[in-house]
Amino acid sequence: MISRLIQKIEETGAPVVVGLDPDLSFIPEELKEKAFGEYGETLEGAAEAVWQFNRGIVDSTAGLIPAVKPQIAMYEQFGLPGIQAYLKTVEYCHEKGLLVIGDVKRGDIGSTSAAYARAHIGTIQVGEKRYAPFDEDFCTVNPYLGTDGVEPFLAECRSSDKGIFVLVKTSNPSSGEFQDRLSDGRPIYEWVADKVNEWGRDLMEGSYSNVGCVVGATYPEMGRALRRQMPGAYILVPGYGAQGGKAEDLVDFFREDGLGAIINSSRGIIAAWKKEAYRDFGSAGYAEAARQAVLDMIGDLRRVGIGRS
Amino acid sequence: MISRLIQKIEETGAPVVVGLDPDLSFIPEELKEKAFGEYGETLEGAAEAVWQFNRGIVDSTAGLIPAVKPQIAMYEQFGLPGIQAYLKTVEYCHEKGLLVIGDVKRGDIGSTSAAYARAHIGTIQVGEKRYAPFDEDFCTVNPYLGTDGVEPFLAECRSSDKGIFVLVKTSNPSSGEFQDRLSDGRPIYEWVADKVNEWGRDLMEGSYSNVGCVVGATYPEMGRALRRQMPGAYILVPGYGAQGGKAEDLVDFFREDGLGAIINSSRGIIAAWKKEAYRDFGSAGYAEAARQAVLDMIGDLRRVGIGRS
Repeated sequence: MISRLIQKIEETGAPVVVGLDPDLSFIPEELKEKAFGEYGETLEGAAEAVWQFNRGIVDSTAGLIPAVKPQIAMYEQFGLPGIQAYLKTVEYCHEKGLLVIGDVKRGDIGSTSAAYARAHIGTIQVGEKRYAPFDEDFCTVNPYLGTDGVEPFLAECRSSDKGIFVLVKTSNPSSGEFQDRLSDGRPIYEWVADKVNEWGRDLMEGSYSNVGCVVGATYPEMGRALRRQMPGAYILVPGYGAQGGKAEDLVDFFREDGLGAIINSSRGIIAAWKKEAYRDFGSAGYAEAARQAVLDMIGDLRRVGIGRS
Repeated sequence: MISRLIQKIEETGAPVVVGLDPDLSFIPEELKEKAFGEYGETLEGAAEAVWQFNRGIVDSTAGLIPAVKPQIAMYEQFGLPGIQAYLKTVEYCHEKGLLVIGDVKRGDIGSTSAAYARAHIGTIQVGEKRYAPFDEDFCTVNPYLGTDGVEPFLAECRSSDKGIFVLVKTSNPSSGEFQDRLSDGRPIYEWVADKVNEWGRDLMEGSYSNVGCVVGATYPEMGRALRRQMPGAYILVPGYGAQGGKAEDLVDFFREDGLGAIINSSRGIIAAWKKEAYRDFGSAGYAEAARQAVLDMIGDLRRVGIGRS
């Protein structure tokens, strides 16, 4: 699967992933009103607004980017209709040729992680039939429970040609509380990074593994060191834009081949229409504003030598 | 909310929680055949079997126990119909007077954790209306991202009178890989435990906080030390029974008031009918077998002085 992601990055020249994290406040009023008119001010109504909003974003950006990263929490908050909107979004993105990174951050004891792995990147047997319930191409995994909580995801990567991104160093302000604690002279995130190497060793496709990692753009020095420590891991980098990460900070997340990282932006793209710089698009032009924000992001990255024109 | 849990533990005399983690292999063939007959060998069919199975277990055990702990992964693996079965189970348990601990192990950066917290233990505003999407009473939380990933759950605990259990030391074999790593002379799980104390400080109800923790029965010595370190935290203890934890190992998870811990058993209860000791119940008697297994578990705990008759 990682080679498919790389191929799409090379085709688009853009190591960019759009985070489909539709907070209701990002959605234009007229779109919400239409959905509420149809379904009432219900979870169904909210989910319909989310889905229509996403469809607009996907239609306007699909040709520019290799992948999207829907954050399942933003759908889970609308209960069952929210999960349905998530599934419709995943399916629609696939129809549009986009790869889907399910940002689910699951992780549990072995037998439970196996159920999560089946759900998100694998398949489940029901009688004589087999289903792929969520059918993402990649998902994010929380490593706190150790190898036996991650192994079931590796098993699905092997059997279903999928990939995972393991949380190593997250982009949020308190990520250091546990992740940066020193143990035998090295921070915990480096111990996790060692395991990422180990987990990914038999899942290589060329120079990169189907086991990637998450390292926040907000910690560029750690990113530089982690790039060296995990040469075979693709780095999914959140934190660019709204969270404060700058293009200059991202250069060292990439390897000399120009590959090795993919930069996520969520609010900065999907809520672009609410920002001063894109106000001319108006709320009706939210999707076009998102397209322009993607183009601007690609431009910003190319300015520092990331990506290819 | 923790005082409601304590009240229910005192009413039943049983600090026991039944883990509703219905693997398809735990469900009697006739129940699956009926569901597949109605819905086909589909995710809907599997979810229907899960729901009917759960209903039987809940009907037969509700009077004996204070709470259940559905593991959402076991539902998520059946996609949308699975999540629907989860929601029906939560609602049904509430109707039967049981508290529900959603074993969801969510945790993310702040704005995303806020969505998870709204989803599981809080409420979400849609226009002028407000909904409680999953409506569990407690949920489990993964602490790897630090305070700002946990704080949104605390906010919902405060505003909605709910509770959480934070993963401190999990029951699985590899839990030590990161959790036991020493930092400044203390294992990471003790650093997490310090934070559990801090997070729970303004959420006390009497001697106990709405911020509890998860410590596996499989690590009794660590449980003993963590009991002392977090006097105000209720400990949710997985790992009894099928995972190898014994009643004797559990004594020190409790405080001198006889309270302070609640012991989960999943497979040992809901799949009891498949075990040699309960074979006389047959598959048709799976729910009665579960009831007997709960009674036997309560007896086993009382044998070592846990719970009250």
